[in-house]
Amino acid sequence: MKELLPMARKRRPSDLVIRGARIANVFTHLYEEMDLAIASGRIVGIGHGYEGHEVVDARGTVLIPGMIDGHVHIESTMLTPSTFASAVVPLGTTAVMADPHEIVNTCGMKGLEFMAQEARMLPLDILLAVPSCVPASEFETPFEIIDATHIEQAFRRGWGNHLGEMMNYPGVIAGTPEVWSRVLASGYRVRTGHAPGVSGRDLNAYLLTECNSDHENNSAAEALEKARRGMWVMIREGATERNLDDVIELLRSKEWAFTRCMAVSDDLTARYLLEMGHMDRKLRALIKNKIPPFRALSMVTLNPSQYFRLWDRGAIAPGYLADVVMVDSIEQCHVQKVWKRGKLVAENGKPLFDFPPILGEAPVSNRGFEAPSREQLVVQASENAFVRVIIVQPGKVTTDYAEHQAKVVDGYAVPDPNRDLAQLVVADKNTCSGRVAIGFAQGFGLKKGALASSVAHDAHNYIVVGTDTESIETGFRYLAENGGGIAVALKDQVLASLPLPVGGLMCLHSPQETADKLAEIDDAATQLGVTLPHPFMALSFLSLSVIPELKLTDKGYVDFTRGGALGLFVGEEETL
Amino acid sequence: MKELLPMARKRRPSDLVIRGARIANVFTHLYEEMDLAIASGRIVGIGHGYEGHEVVDARGTVLIPGMIDGHVHIESTMLTPSTFASAVVPLGTTAVMADPHEIVNTCGMKGLEFMAQEARMLPLDILLAVPSCVPASEFETPFEIIDATHIEQAFRRGWGNHLGEMMNYPGVIAGTPEVWSRVLASGYRVRTGHAPGVSGRDLNAYLLTECNSDHENNSAAEALEKARRGMWVMIREGATERNLDDVIELLRSKEWAFTRCMAVSDDLTARYLLEMGHMDRKLRALIKNKIPPFRALSMVTLNPSQYFRLWDRGAIAPGYLADVVMVDSIEQCHVQKVWKRGKLVAENGKPLFDFPPILGEAPVSNRGFEAPSREQLVVQASENAFVRVIIVQPGKVTTDYAEHQAKVVDGYAVPDPNRDLAQLVVADKNTCSGRVAIGFAQGFGLKKGALASSVAHDAHNYIVVGTDTESIETGFRYLAENGGGIAVALKDQVLASLPLPVGGLMCLHSPQETADKLAEIDDAATQLGVTLPHPFMALSFLSLSVIPELKLTDKGYVDFTRGGALGLFVGEEETL
Repeated sequence: MKELLPMARKRRPSDLVIRGARIANVFTHLYEEMDLAIASGRIVGIGHGYEGHEVVDARGTVLIPGMIDGHVHIESTMLTPSTFASAVVPLGTTAVMADPHEIVNTCGMKGLEFMAQEARMLPLDILLAVPSCVPASEFETPFEIIDATHIEQAFRRGWGNHLGEMMNYPGVIAGTPEVWSRVLASGYRVRTGHAPGVSGRDLNAYLLTECNSDHENNSAAEALEKARRGMWVMIREGATERNLDDVIELLRSKEWAFTRCMAVSDDLTARYLLEMGHMDRKLRALIKNKIPPFRALSMVTLNPSQYFRLWDRGAIAPGYLADVVMVDSIEQCHVQKVWKRGKLVAENGKPLFDFPPILGEAPVSNRGFEAPSREQLVVQASENAFVRVIIVQPGKVTTDYAEHQAKVVDGYAVPDPNRDLAQLVVADKNTCSGRVAIGFAQGFGLKKGALASSVAHDAHNYIVVGTDTESIETGFRYLAENGGGIAVALKDQVLASLPLPVGGLMCLHSPQETADKLAEIDDAATQLGVTLPHPFMALSFLSLSVIPELKLTDKGYVDFTRGGALGLFVGEEETL
Repeated sequence: MKELLPMARKRRPSDLVIRGARIANVFTHLYEEMDLAIASGRIVGIGHGYEGHEVVDARGTVLIPGMIDGHVHIESTMLTPSTFASAVVPLGTTAVMADPHEIVNTCGMKGLEFMAQEARMLPLDILLAVPSCVPASEFETPFEIIDATHIEQAFRRGWGNHLGEMMNYPGVIAGTPEVWSRVLASGYRVRTGHAPGVSGRDLNAYLLTECNSDHENNSAAEALEKARRGMWVMIREGATERNLDDVIELLRSKEWAFTRCMAVSDDLTARYLLEMGHMDRKLRALIKNKIPPFRALSMVTLNPSQYFRLWDRGAIAPGYLADVVMVDSIEQCHVQKVWKRGKLVAENGKPLFDFPPILGEAPVSNRGFEAPSREQLVVQASENAFVRVIIVQPGKVTTDYAEHQAKVVDGYAVPDPNRDLAQLVVADKNTCSGRVAIGFAQGFGLKKGALASSVAHDAHNYIVVGTDTESIETGFRYLAENGGGIAVALKDQVLASLPLPVGGLMCLHSPQETADKLAEIDDAATQLGVTLPHPFMALSFLSLSVIPELKLTDKGYVDFTRGGALGLFVGEEETL
């Protein structure tokens, strides 16, 4: 920094001067029409009369700080860190707080190391969480269990910046030693939370962990209670789960709200990034919802930087990283240029960098998983048996619990498309134990065939939903052969597919190709009768045991609201 | 924390439940009428129906977080840490960020160690700065120079929490390697600033240090510019220097202002604490100045905690330290009870603890300094000589520069009470080099006698202002004999005095005794003609070289606005 004094003092020209723009000041909520001087990747001057080796005429534009996503799972986009960067940097994002718990579920510490290595080379700061919940609960089967020792080791190796979302709130509240040891292994670092619906004394108990942020706010009342207890409110606006409408009243009505809230993504898709945007989209959405522009801007810049203790980011100020975005206006947020550490890295929506999808070596994702046999995919049932059924809710990660009379044919409980009752199968591919669990799901609208996916939060074991055993078998075969992917199957045919060779989660395609492939896949699903929007996104959450109500993992049904493991048949003694 | 879960969950009674109060929530700017449950010194529950081993009926009261002073020099009160705690804890202060640069000037690292040891035993969290500017400039003579190695060592030994105010802004801006090495020695810790009047490109340059707070804001415009550049604004309301009136318009008019501003003390007196209060006084003053109560409350609780990264303080929330203050209302802030880490430590204005003034061993402050000889106290001058004169400004630490014709008697420049021209003498007691510097000061109103003090920022060499050589000699003799103190002398008599044996800065009296002694001393000064309010406070700033304009250290006149060292006589070549 000392070397930058002559530039700050105008004794020597800076590397770059951006001249004539209105600089958005997130500290004081005003514009300043001044030169912005940059040297060695840092902001060295804001004022008049700065000279630079390069001068950019920015009249008529606005400069905002590089935007920060406070919570995102890059794997959800199915893009690698490299292609993710090529998608979001041109949208004005210069840093993301990424929780790689998907790939850590499928590849263990190797997955975390892979993400950390990839992140180092990109013109996007990917600050990684060390996942706190791999597995998310005892009902899920990851590649390896990430315990307190792993977490300490990951931080020591510099792979992580903060503790990933502590989703095991029942474990926290119950005082499970293993859960608490993971929390404490994060030391003095920021600890992020995840406590949907946790309230009252349970919230008090949860906060003893100091996991003091939450993106699971399904109502203004929930967000308000969490804010009262000291949590930073992360307003999730992802591809399918969106809470802005839920909490907007809070943001509008409270003077303090702009200080301890931030907008985050959680889960995104490549298509959403291409069509809707990233943090720019959230900024526009906040402002359209009548949040004053500077307050909204704080929620995607200064506030995440303050929460994550990134003291030299989130604002345009002397000494700060020169992560600067040129836009037409805060309100429209059409991004014209993006500078990352003073280097122009995107212009007019295009990245000015071109990296291969994988820069290093991807961790092995296919370890000889064998598709389940036909015998494993059928269930014997008595006449008049009642089965538990997951009711899929459009656009929600939560599900409802139901009990329906099974359709029994030849002594087997089988799918019943007339009642939209599809068979759901989860197979343990992470440890290749051969374990397979079967359930039923309602809400997809599937009339025939099957949907198969290696994306199934959080363990990402293979999941297939289908109306007949042959289609389900085809789905599993596709996954086994490709080391993961997304596929629509009908009988012995794969109608549309996208292989996900990187950890069974990420593909080697560009954002546009990825989105196109997924559109084809959704079309194919529609042809099979699917009426649910984003059926594969919905499918991917049906194994997530920590979200209520009923879920299916490779170990069977789980419903935390009903005490944990449940059998397939109502009245049957519990299978676990 | 895990051990506290049963209390948070109401499975077991807490240690203490405060029931029926309205709890002030600084996150959401509202009151909640709920039980507050405390166990093992932490807040474990906010809600209804908590049970406790001890239950306090708090109906009709308000609970606020323990207040935090973001910047104070305890030595200025002349109280030891122990007696300071007995004064401020009953006023609702539970933590202070104390910069001990006074005692470090007079006693070096031993002084810092002394403060750190004393702090450990008290029911007040004294979080110490490691001073960045000992000496404040090359023109001052401390006991030992605190360089980068000392600073690193102090942090390593756990004596410091943050880097003390970086006052040497000329050195910072000029890129002086020694100054920068001290800044960098603080590592990742909070670095506090001090940059009066620094603006424009100089402010940009200064901020490359990341010293990002400032209590030197003499106008709303100055505070606004600093806030724009990312600095946290410390609103100083001390015993003599008060900037609330200067910046109030900013606080009133800007929606963001309550988020990055805090009220601090800087320098206080025992009398001020007794008569006006501490942070309670600042809270009242903010509210009287039309700052909404919760915004004002944030400025003495949450905001300092956020700036200083004290993540479990500054609010009443689960997991936070149980530093809680019971008041009648935020607006009146009459403190009824104070709990520190869950323990009742003050009630109805009285501390419930009683420690001796010094708990450990005080560093030696009297190292054989000898009072200057008569020859050292007189100045030869030619007829028609012009001397430089410090013009003291009532209630300000800044001075004005003037040039006046000297009164020359028998070839010596002598004081001239008719023109309120007193002689000012500073003698190096820190290193006992025998060095003495002489100047003139206008503004005291002194008609006869002398005021002597061992409190003379920042080096605290001995300073005496007087109208005749005998009185000045008596003053120095008092200081030498008592290892420091405050005295009013007339000819060979000491009219009133207070010995300051602890580092030459702090006394062994209670706050009330200290205030009474100082009142006697002020009375005695008034009898000598002094018209300046707080003459000893004013005197104590006349050696502070880093504040404009003219100052006198043991090395002679200094005026940074005029390039540094200056001779006594106008036109004379510079003496340094």
